[in-house]
Formats: sequence, structure tokens, C-alpha cells
Amino acid sequence: MERVDLDGLRWNDAGLVPVVVQDVENGDVLMLAWANREALERTLAEGRMVYWSRSRQELWRKGDTSGHLQHWDELLVDCDADVILARVHQEGAACHTGERTCFFRGLGGV
Amino acid sequence: MERVDLDGLRWNDAGLVPVVVQDVENGDVLMLAWANREALERTLAEGRMVYWSRSRQELWRKGDTSGHLQHWDELLVDCDADVILARVHQEGAACHTGERTCFFRGLGGV
Repeated sequence: MERVDLDGLRWNDAGLVPVVVQDVENGDVLMLAWANREALERTLAEGRMVYWSRSRQELWRKGDTSGHLQHWDELLVDCDADVILARVHQEGAACHTGERTCFFRGLGGV
Repeated sequence: MERVDLDGLRWNDAGLVPVVVQDVENGDVLMLAWANREALERTLAEGRMVYWSRSRQELWRKGDTSGHLQHWDELLVDCDADVILARVHQEGAACHTGERTCFFRGLGGV
């Protein structure tokens, strides 16, 4: 498989890329988070997902508080090199509400 | 299932939300695109995915040029109401490169 390294990524104006997180065990899309370069460096080095919290403006080592760690199995990059897809083994719930996935509601009227 | 309508969505500073697109037939994550309110109104009305092209700054009715339409099966909203997950039947390739999914490369060194 062709590889793209961190220097090849296209960050947005805030220095971030969106990270789509998918459960590698059942294919469910669990959440979308954001990462800066340091977050991806730590993700690569530690084997678990580390994000950038836009609300707290700090690194967010997913699971440090909740225990709901995400161990990545595969990290993919899209054609424009501005989106990451992380295929993970999810411990517990991905969502802070306690739901396993953040996508537990429908778009209105559908 | 609980519903969130368009008035309940949280748009970013540009009036957009990211849309994660998943193949409902095999679970593959196909792409990430962006939508404004009009794009989602048309998506809901037409039964196929309509996005906002940030590069062209215009509505992007996916497949009008390529023929690679996306017929949605389910539209979901995340816990923060600022991300959409579209589960679609994909005609042909989702990616403009001709690959079925935009996520055909690995993140460097992995």
C-alpha cells in the first residue's frame, strides 16, 4: 500500500485534520475527532489514538479519563491527504454519552 | 430513534458540517465531504447526496459529472450535532481517482 507521511498531509488553517474513527471489529463509524501533527506523532508512537481537543485547546489522549482507549489497527489517508481514517479496537464506549458510537440519532424527518 | 432537524445542527464558522460517507453494503468508509444547509435540504429532498464544494464554492450534486451517484439509506447525526454520517448505496467509485474509496493509502511508516 502506498504511504503518505506526516509531511505530506494537508492541514487546515488551524493546523488540524479530521480523523474519522471506525470500529475495526464491526465496521461501525464511531466518531469524528481532530488531530494536529503532535497528536498524530503520538498516535503513531503509542499505538492508541491521541487527538487535539478544539474546545480545551490541548492534546486529548482518548481514554485517559474514561478508560475508553482506542488501539489503532490501521491508519489511512484520503486522496487529498487532508482526512485520516483510523480503524481501531475500541475499549468500552467511544461516545462521552456512554453510547458505543456518537452516531445514535437520525437527521430530522428521515 | 431520536431525531435532530436541520435547525438543531451546529455549523462551523463557514456554515458547514463534515459528512462522513459510508458504503451501507460493505461498511467501507468512502470519503469525507462538507455540506451547508442547502446541500442537506437537497440531500433530504432528492434521496441522493448533495455537498458543498469548498474549492469551487458551489453546490456539488455528487455524480452529476461522473455518474457516480450516492443514494442515501440512512442519515445520522453525532452527539455534538456537528457531524453527519451518511450511509449510502454508491454507484461506481466514490473517489475522483477512480478508486472505490478515497482511503486507499496508509499513513507513513505504519
